[in-house]
Amino acid sequence: MTEKRPMNDAAQPILIVGSVAFDSIETPNGRADMALGGSASYAGIAASYFAKPRVVGIVGDDFEDHHMRKLSDHGIDVRGIERAKGKTFHWKGRYHENFKDRDTLETSLNVFQHFDPTIPEEYRRTPYVLLGNIDPKLQLSVLDQTQGTRFVAMDTMNFWINTARDALLDVLKRIDLLFINDEEAMQLADEWSVAAAAEKLLRMGPKFVVVKRGEYGAVLFGPRVTLFVPALLLSNVVDPTGAGDTFAGGFMGELSRSGDLDRAGLASALTWGTVLASFTVEAFSVDGIVDLTPEAIADRRKALVEMVRY
Amino acid sequence: MTEKRPMNDAAQPILIVGSVAFDSIETPNGRADMALGGSASYAGIAASYFAKPRVVGIVGDDFEDHHMRKLSDHGIDVRGIERAKGKTFHWKGRYHENFKDRDTLETSLNVFQHFDPTIPEEYRRTPYVLLGNIDPKLQLSVLDQTQGTRFVAMDTMNFWINTARDALLDVLKRIDLLFINDEEAMQLADEWSVAAAAEKLLRMGPKFVVVKRGEYGAVLFGPRVTLFVPALLLSNVVDPTGAGDTFAGGFMGELSRSGDLDRAGLASALTWGTVLASFTVEAFSVDGIVDLTPEAIADRRKALVEMVRY
Repeated sequence: MTEKRPMNDAAQPILIVGSVAFDSIETPNGRADMALGGSASYAGIAASYFAKPRVVGIVGDDFEDHHMRKLSDHGIDVRGIERAKGKTFHWKGRYHENFKDRDTLETSLNVFQHFDPTIPEEYRRTPYVLLGNIDPKLQLSVLDQTQGTRFVAMDTMNFWINTARDALLDVLKRIDLLFINDEEAMQLADEWSVAAAAEKLLRMGPKFVVVKRGEYGAVLFGPRVTLFVPALLLSNVVDPTGAGDTFAGGFMGELSRSGDLDRAGLASALTWGTVLASFTVEAFSVDGIVDLTPEAIADRRKALVEMVRY
Repeated sequence: MTEKRPMNDAAQPILIVGSVAFDSIETPNGRADMALGGSASYAGIAASYFAKPRVVGIVGDDFEDHHMRKLSDHGIDVRGIERAKGKTFHWKGRYHENFKDRDTLETSLNVFQHFDPTIPEEYRRTPYVLLGNIDPKLQLSVLDQTQGTRFVAMDTMNFWINTARDALLDVLKRIDLLFINDEEAMQLADEWSVAAAAEKLLRMGPKFVVVKRGEYGAVLFGPRVTLFVPALLLSNVVDPTGAGDTFAGGFMGELSRSGDLDRAGLASALTWGTVLASFTVEAFSVDGIVDLTPEAIADRRKALVEMVRY
């Protein structure tokens, strides 16, 4: 499967904990039913282009072999995906015509409701860790089970800011990088500008904050570094679901590949994450990122970098 | 006044037609009453850092000498500003806490209602022209009065898209560059993505379209060129009024200074326009851009470019 992980020779391992789900989605450009989704699926596949993802999640007995193969065929180590009695997490939603607003029609947590991530013994010393957007208490549990990590990133969302703020603040103290979207950054920091919010979030623990701004790109804030990456301008948006997870997975995959935590490494991670995310939104489910060639990815990154060459 | 036009030695002339107004504004960070505003004021002062603006507009007899001096002290040729009997255009508005949404509390067109721009004989061969956001019929009239222009840009807004679409489409056929914000671009093109909208707008006449995205920056689309510039990330936003006009004025000022209509010249214009606009939002009225030093402007451009150096 080397052709599916074009950037990756050394195959540095990266631990990714999150949801593996079925999504049923309607957008102005079509629909998908019970298609593979979840933060760990998107992040895992994106990271697999750069590194060797070890995914920890939970699925039900309706999660068939061909679903699992979509992940394992991509070089993802799926031994950490628990198979439980019951149904797989299912989310059903409908996007508005602007592709931004969406209505959740159904959220069936199913087996995910009892998810209590157990990190396999052989995963516990993985140097790079991505804590997907799950209950901060579970993120803390993962941190308690890992040792000697080099760089830990987390993703979160408004639901946890509203319902589990204290645990979330505890996680923030123990991680290196926070992925968060702009509205949520301002909500969590109680500030009205992204810059002021990021400054405040940095004082809460993480060394870096990456503010995701959807179709506008992303900004990384850190000590003596502010980096901006625009999103690719796509005229063929099909389904934005998973773009943020893909971005985080691509970012962390590239970071673990290069091992460079300085400005250049972070900038590189930002751009590759953005490129991967641009493919995700062009198709339903993970279809946009399962069959990418090294050339397709490199071409798009070239276009991205060219846009900001002054 | 050379210290107020730091980049400018040759002082290439640029013709700017638009509103000169008084604004009364409330934002979460304060208020200003009857302060100098209007698209031509912002654009003129911004352009004056790079070129010699010739402003055409109209004011009432309440427009005092000290107001006019704010413009003329900046090297702006104000002979084209007509003084009419009556009051100056007055806009009163209040911004919401997010600094994006705003309510118009009062719009008194006053003398602006009868504005029929007469381009002074000595302005008619100005090579660079910026048609501010006014009635497209007046923009056409300006075009009819000019000769041998090298590069004409226009700004517009939803009001004209809704009420004067045909005239607006006529202007589009006769200009080189359209400034428009993202929502209005999608509205005018009847498309749901910025990329698709820009593609369609380019087929309507202009060689270039610059989509303004507020705090997210701007994108220039043209033949074989797509350029992206992020906005500066400011934690001290006071009043966003005039940011778009400042951006357009800075852009066109720098373009007329360099005379370079290729990729490098356009990129340079984008960045300087963005830098000037960032100063505008840090104060009420034109206060943020009247006293800039070359060093302050250059420092901020350096920070801007550094954000996208990968």
